[in-house]
Amino acid sequence: MSTAILLFAHGARDPEWARPLEKLATAVRALRPHVTVQPCFLEFMSPDLATAIDSAVAAGALRIEVVPVFLAAGGHVKRDLPAMLDAARARHPGVTIVLSGVLGEAESVIAAMAAHVVGLAG
Amino acid sequence: MSTAILLFAHGARDPEWARPLEKLATAVRALRPHVTVQPCFLEFMSPDLATAIDSAVAAGALRIEVVPVFLAAGGHVKRDLPAMLDAARARHPGVTIVLSGVLGEAESVIAAMAAHVVGLAG
Repeated sequence: MSTAILLFAHGARDPEWARPLEKLATAVRALRPHVTVQPCFLEFMSPDLATAIDSAVAAGALRIEVVPVFLAAGGHVKRDLPAMLDAARARHPGVTIVLSGVLGEAESVIAAMAAHVVGLAG
Repeated sequence: MSTAILLFAHGARDPEWARPLEKLATAVRALRPHVTVQPCFLEFMSPDLATAIDSAVAAGALRIEVVPVFLAAGGHVKRDLPAMLDAARARHPGVTIVLSGVLGEAESVIAAMAAHVVGLAG
């Protein structure tokens, strides 16, 4: 079954802001070479989530995993994102669209951040 | 020399938003038990960065390491943060205030996020 992973981030006016997200997408692709991995954005950057979902479906995805690349779940993740996914499910009733937890809340990610902070400290 | 690590994040209206940051602070404290570790925020939550710096200095810190807990460096990190640090340095000329890179741009953090994304995928 064709799967797409959408890395959904906030976006910013500064084009350089997307660089770590592109690095993350590259790292995920290296680990899952047969899966489509696409960054997408809430605002300021493109594609937006709806466009990314529609493109993945047009390319044949039957399962779409949406991963919020946020440090924590605030209003965007708790309210805006579920509404966007409901709308996408209504547009694509034959496609399974799954929402994961926020990346910054994953224990392993927090542990990596903590180790990095400690490594920084002189 | 007394050191403080300030974990500087954006903040949000939802009080639960700070929970991963508190977990990060706890994890850093476990690794560096003799260092003061304090979350602080750009907006919506307290303390703000200036208050956190002033409190650390009042508690005896001579070196303050400010770690931007952001996924990427946008305008807040590139413009607002250096200006706030310049103002803090002017208030506390005897204190060394160091700014680190953004956590989300650290290779080890990106690797942990990628591994987590791949673990999520069915």
